Amino acid sequence: MDRDNQVSSSNYDSMHKLKPTNHFVNALLTDLYQLTMAYCYWKQGRHEDQAVFDLFFRKCPFDGEFAIFAGLEECLRFLASFHFTDSDIQFLATVIHAEKEFFDWLRNLDVSKVSVYALSEGSVTFPLVPLLRVQGPLAVCQLLETTLLNLINYASLVATNAARFRLAVGDKSLLEFGLRRAQGPDGGVSASRYTYLGGFDATSNVLASKLFSIPCSGTIAHSFVQTFHDCSQLATTKLVDSNKNEREFVQCVMETRERLGYNTNQGELAAFISYAQCFPDRFLVLVDTYDTLSSGVPNFICVALCLLDFGYKPLGIRLDSGDLSYLSKAARKEISRIAQLTGKVELNQVKIAASNDLNETTLLSLHQQGHEIDIFGIGTHLVTCQQQPALGCVYKLVEINGQPRIKVSEDISKLTIPCAKKAYRLYGKEGYPLVDLLTLETEEAPKVGDKILCRHPYVERKRCIIVPTRIEPLLKLVWNGKMPVEPSFFSLSHLREFCKQEMSCLREDHRRFLNPTPYKVSVSQTLFDFIHRLWLEETPIPELA
Amino acid sequence: MDRDNQVSSSNYDSMHKLKPTNHFVNALLTDLYQLTMAYCYWKQGRHEDQAVFDLFFRKCPFDGEFAIFAGLEECLRFLASFHFTDSDIQFLATVIHAEKEFFDWLRNLDVSKVSVYALSEGSVTFPLVPLLRVQGPLAVCQLLETTLLNLINYASLVATNAARFRLAVGDKSLLEFGLRRAQGPDGGVSASRYTYLGGFDATSNVLASKLFSIPCSGTIAHSFVQTFHDCSQLATTKLVDSNKNEREFVQCVMETRERLGYNTNQGELAAFISYAQCFPDRFLVLVDTYDTLSSGVPNFICVALCLLDFGYKPLGIRLDSGDLSYLSKAARKEISRIAQLTGKVELNQVKIAASNDLNETTLLSLHQQGHEIDIFGIGTHLVTCQQQPALGCVYKLVEINGQPRIKVSEDISKLTIPCAKKAYRLYGKEGYPLVDLLTLETEEAPKVGDKILCRHPYVERKRCIIVPTRIEPLLKLVWNGKMPVEPSFFSLSHLREFCKQEMSCLREDHRRFLNPTPYKVSVSQTLFDFIHRLWLEETPIPELA
Repeated sequence: MDRDNQVSSSNYDSMHKLKPTNHFVNALLTDLYQLTMAYCYWKQGRHEDQAVFDLFFRKCPFDGEFAIFAGLEECLRFLASFHFTDSDIQFLATVIHAEKEFFDWLRNLDVSKVSVYALSEGSVTFPLVPLLRVQGPLAVCQLLETTLLNLINYASLVATNAARFRLAVGDKSLLEFGLRRAQGPDGGVSASRYTYLGGFDATSNVLASKLFSIPCSGTIAHSFVQTFHDCSQLATTKLVDSNKNEREFVQCVMETRERLGYNTNQGELAAFISYAQCFPDRFLVLVDTYDTLSSGVPNFICVALCLLDFGYKPLGIRLDSGDLSYLSKAARKEISRIAQLTGKVELNQVKIAASNDLNETTLLSLHQQGHEIDIFGIGTHLVTCQQQPALGCVYKLVEINGQPRIKVSEDISKLTIPCAKKAYRLYGKEGYPLVDLLTLETEEAPKVGDKILCRHPYVERKRCIIVPTRIEPLLKLVWNGKMPVEPSFFSLSHLREFCKQEMSCLREDHRRFLNPTPYKVSVSQTLFDFIHRLWLEETPIPELA
Repeated sequence: MDRDNQVSSSNYDSMHKLKPTNHFVNALLTDLYQLTMAYCYWKQGRHEDQAVFDLFFRKCPFDGEFAIFAGLEECLRFLASFHFTDSDIQFLATVIHAEKEFFDWLRNLDVSKVSVYALSEGSVTFPLVPLLRVQGPLAVCQLLETTLLNLINYASLVATNAARFRLAVGDKSLLEFGLRRAQGPDGGVSASRYTYLGGFDATSNVLASKLFSIPCSGTIAHSFVQTFHDCSQLATTKLVDSNKNEREFVQCVMETRERLGYNTNQGELAAFISYAQCFPDRFLVLVDTYDTLSSGVPNFICVALCLLDFGYKPLGIRLDSGDLSYLSKAARKEISRIAQLTGKVELNQVKIAASNDLNETTLLSLHQQGHEIDIFGIGTHLVTCQQQPALGCVYKLVEINGQPRIKVSEDISKLTIPCAKKAYRLYGKEGYPLVDLLTLETEEAPKVGDKILCRHPYVERKRCIIVPTRIEPLLKLVWNGKMPVEPSFFSLSHLREFCKQEMSCLREDHRRFLNPTPYKVSVSQTLFDFIHRLWLEETPIPELA
């Protein structure tokens, strides 16, 4: 990534006063057990033990085989501002019965001895590869767990969801409309931010637009149409045309309606005229308040033709109910018919937008049925991630005072990979990534052109040899104890471009919707041996009787 | 509700500086189309038209037949602080190309002419009954839509989810553990707040505990156990007993272990001892890090017996994996065996807590299988509402300048009920609510003992006569244009009690999980006639060719 001109202006120049975007993000936004454990470590004098934690997920969301990593900037803002206030300490003293010295220690605690390595925000990523590696004093690393998980889980989940919607619609426009149904105010704002990162084009959310410079989109609702009875309610019958001449607009529309023989709802027509008078160069209206084909579309056409006559370019219609495939095709057909009839060929350029409970399945189904939709407005299912509303990132201890730690489980999918590790992405000759490789931190880096044995972390017989044409180290130092390490922060639009590029590198069979091929996440031979030795050591041989 | 001593101290005494809990909640947290519509209304001189909007849902969540109304206090805080800042206006001027006078109007806009009627927060509620009725100038009422929906949808959804979990477990303890998997920081904080309202007993979320005075709960994680190798890591081998005498604790535990013939993991044992030394009167530990029955439970027993010996009361164990029914029964059996063997009958009082991806289905299944669990810790599925991650509240125009408005739709379930309305809950002689009745605002209130004809709003043949023994008006004025009307704010624990009482009034067949009986929401004869007249007026007779 080239960071010249890409760093958002609000970031580096005020690094010393970095704050999380949401003011709930502070040291107290954690689970109580992090504090009870911290107290035990402190009391045992073990709080400065050197720990390494990995933050990763075990299964990609939405039955897919990839995820997008997001939330890093907020994690760094959290680290930069991490401390317990006096008020926090007073509160904690009512919950945990501990010595005054413990609270003194807590009050002075910071993350200056913590290092964090991370993937680039916006990366395509896969199970088991650490998204973050957090290392430093045991107690403080433990205290960071819940907040880091909270900041990464939803951000990555909803960014991944957005990337999947993007795959489902190709290059059509995608608008995020989810604020009203999101899980709380921040759920709405985060959804706007991270769905833009994942490939959406705009949001309806004004606050998110302001905070993160996301393009903002919106026109009218049904209630607007319903407030109009007829054109007598209009404050003026005129409109200033593109040559700055004020001319009769309502008359133009009424004559057009008459000429075309339409018998449409008059309140709806008045609403459309009113909107055109306010936004003559942004005329896109909702056409399903009364009846899409017999009223909404004809009313749109009448106003649109007059706007063309007045030198403006009407934008389009929005469908919000019914059979979107059928209605979009029928609407397009009528619009084309009138374009031909009137000779106003510009009418063929108007866009058809559709909304109403769209999800991945309905988008794929629309694609199969055929449709004439140019713009999709997606809300509820996108932002709340209906298909799977939580990503299961975990934060696991992998090393303590230089000693590896493994979490043994009956369930092989719940094993952890011990030790501080490095991660590499190995690319094949066709330019696609072939495998992510985890090695011990102390191992030498793999080299382009070498034959590299890649082992499945748990299953002995699964292994392959890769001769990479390109190798990308995945984990970079992003927090050095004092501040985010450059380049950690990029503008959201830059992250969006990066994510798009990452997605385009991913082989088609990994990203398809039905039965995608799992991407290989492997370990080096050295790490493999390490895991399996520890695994046996930690698993007692059951004595059966 | 008796409001003496119930109003939270942070509320009424500082009414003039009421602020939303989350600082994202402000006038800009809205959809752009609210502002484009507001501009049209302003431009047409219709912004002061008198409008009435209803906020309601059409279908109860989770395939149930009730919901809990929550989020009202935040709505009132939002109203009390509603305004556009200069910075907001500057931003909006880049998005909407409008006259300076429009932005001047926006800058001075407040909600002083808006009235809001609402259900009591924590109420049991049903489809179509307005949760809020918002009335006042058209433009400003329209501008409130998205934020009010956002604040009510998730709050009510997650409170309802919590109430259903409460039904599923009876009087067992319920702990909310969802922060790490919640949809963002505020998703986590709101989840803690509204699941407590819905009947949970405590949260692991420290910030939510501080903000809303919710009991806070938490002990240790697997990583804590994994950091210990053996007892040589302990800072001290002693513990001060309840008589303030410092005595050898590790020796006591080791001798107990020897005597009982346990061969357990030594690191885990050291971790338990360490935790007991820090929290001798709050000893509850996670027992599944290595092996629940061969190591975790025996290690717990050894430490618990010594704590009893030292004059403390051990609290219990937590299971976080495996077959919770089997493991809880086996753990209980072993604990009972040792209680009998050692004569320490207090050991029988220890609690068994369980967590690990619990949802409504697993809880019901555990109930069927039988178990020995006393405390359930529930995270992901509770807070993200896995079964249905969004509630579909809508905000519909029902009246404008005294004229009723109806939204006609092909889909009968999408019709709206026009006019400013009142709502009553009618109770039968057994004390259960029988029906919620909507009437025109201008109609006389129904009376106890009268025969009241209740009509299904849409289906003609569905009607019944009720002779109520008690009538409860449901919608109360909560915002009078200047401030929340007393009593609008209650402490969270009061809302929780109120919700509990509401749930206990609900007939069992309405709240059961499988095929619950729909609760009747009806309209008066006058309102029925009104709806059906308008409905016909607004539906053109299709001409078939």
